[in-house]
Amino acid sequence: MGWIDEVFDGVRYGLEGTVVAEQDSAFQKVTIIDSQRYGKGLLLDGCWMTAERQERHYHEAIVHPALCSAERIERVLVIGGGDGGTARECLRHAGVQHLDLVEIDGLVVEWSQQYLPSIGGGCWSDPRFHLTVGDGIAWAANAPEASYDVVIVDGSDPAGPAEGLFNRAFFEHCRRILRPGGVFATQSESPEAFRQVHIDTVKLIREVFGHADPLYGWVPMYPSGWWSWTFAATDGRRYLQPDPARAAAVDCGCEIWSPRWQRGAFDAVPAAIERELG
Amino acid sequence: MGWIDEVFDGVRYGLEGTVVAEQDSAFQKVTIIDSQRYGKGLLLDGCWMTAERQERHYHEAIVHPALCSAERIERVLVIGGGDGGTARECLRHAGVQHLDLVEIDGLVVEWSQQYLPSIGGGCWSDPRFHLTVGDGIAWAANAPEASYDVVIVDGSDPAGPAEGLFNRAFFEHCRRILRPGGVFATQSESPEAFRQVHIDTVKLIREVFGHADPLYGWVPMYPSGWWSWTFAATDGRRYLQPDPARAAAVDCGCEIWSPRWQRGAFDAVPAAIERELG
Repeated sequence: MGWIDEVFDGVRYGLEGTVVAEQDSAFQKVTIIDSQRYGKGLLLDGCWMTAERQERHYHEAIVHPALCSAERIERVLVIGGGDGGTARECLRHAGVQHLDLVEIDGLVVEWSQQYLPSIGGGCWSDPRFHLTVGDGIAWAANAPEASYDVVIVDGSDPAGPAEGLFNRAFFEHCRRILRPGGVFATQSESPEAFRQVHIDTVKLIREVFGHADPLYGWVPMYPSGWWSWTFAATDGRRYLQPDPARAAAVDCGCEIWSPRWQRGAFDAVPAAIERELG
Repeated sequence: MGWIDEVFDGVRYGLEGTVVAEQDSAFQKVTIIDSQRYGKGLLLDGCWMTAERQERHYHEAIVHPALCSAERIERVLVIGGGDGGTARECLRHAGVQHLDLVEIDGLVVEWSQQYLPSIGGGCWSDPRFHLTVGDGIAWAANAPEASYDVVIVDGSDPAGPAEGLFNRAFFEHCRRILRPGGVFATQSESPEAFRQVHIDTVKLIREVFGHADPLYGWVPMYPSGWWSWTFAATDGRRYLQPDPARAAAVDCGCEIWSPRWQRGAFDAVPAAIERELG
């Protein structure tokens, strides 16, 4: 047993455990660890991504505000999300008929299936689930107009393979490929550890969609522990109002998310960030 | 430069920096560090307490919901809080006429004044501020009935000198010494790292006051980063409604707190905790 740490800007967050597997893929260093506190976990280029007993904070927050509010939810696109957690939460909604998951790094998928099976749960064998190992940015650029009801961007920080997930051209394609009444969701970094990236991302999505709202929650293993996800839609702020029937069908299985929690998480904009967002 | 870590339950949170001063007081080991990321900081018995550039998350959250909602705010009692940050935020409210701060450990006060002067700010020389180095539990037990408008418990985890800040007898005295329309606030631990203590504390305060509401926020340096404070009042849930004039007088100086943030932070009860609290 030793410490596996992510170091960021003079701060480190470490879990006690052992490295189970580590390999350089074509894109990044992929590490699987086994920790005492949170079970098995995944790092990419030394940055914490997820762990078996700390993944719900992230996956419930990015999925249910979108899946409970889009006008239809038949066709869902997940870009990134190779651990399967986002797909798993989406597929808990019976209305989903087809989910495309486009993950750039096949090793992340392979090792998530092998070492972190509880995170993807039943998604890997769900007939509605369609995996493509490839470039999600190109996928969004090439997808037909109005071809998805929900687009979720579950990527890592804007460096390395995820850099192109934070620019105007990409967000414009995400908007273009949404059907009317469709909802867009992306992780939008920490308002504390990545404050400027967070603010710039929310502002850029507001420019592209005409509006957007950050939601604030926690992922203890991420820098500062304080995280955000940002939502937009083709026809206004519909993600603020979860459909009661869809919410009731999933919330009993949630650890974090509920309609009440979501309402609070959208309101809990820290004062200084609210002043900057205007 | 090296790492100064708090280790808790297989997780560590560390800041890169140097130890500036360290000494065993009569109650605990007191450490002052100088960190690259958050400036100077304080640990007690190896646990992170506060730091110059990470203290507002805590102090704004524990103070303003109470100070903006109590019927009167002339007389305030702070138990613990020897770094001065809670007193500083209270004294920003012009209506406060007398603030008693009762901190058990004189070395915490002395070193906070010497090494962390920005945290206490002007509190130490404010004529409304009255410091007692002594036992806050005994102070609450001995204070006359209905002698304070606000009681704030700014203590450390329920072990060592702070253990008695989490039991029924103490909470009953806090209630007894509040005037009608008075508000009680306490830190109530992490819903993640100290989940059972958090739940037990909220339930116990509910038994004593007939109601109580946890508010959820972030203190990156505390275990899991995810933290709570719990509020109660003599005459119902008045802390849910900040007085607009009092709020307007302080919110421009806040980094985190605003009436909107507070509304969200009270709503953002994680689903599994809400089910347990009933």
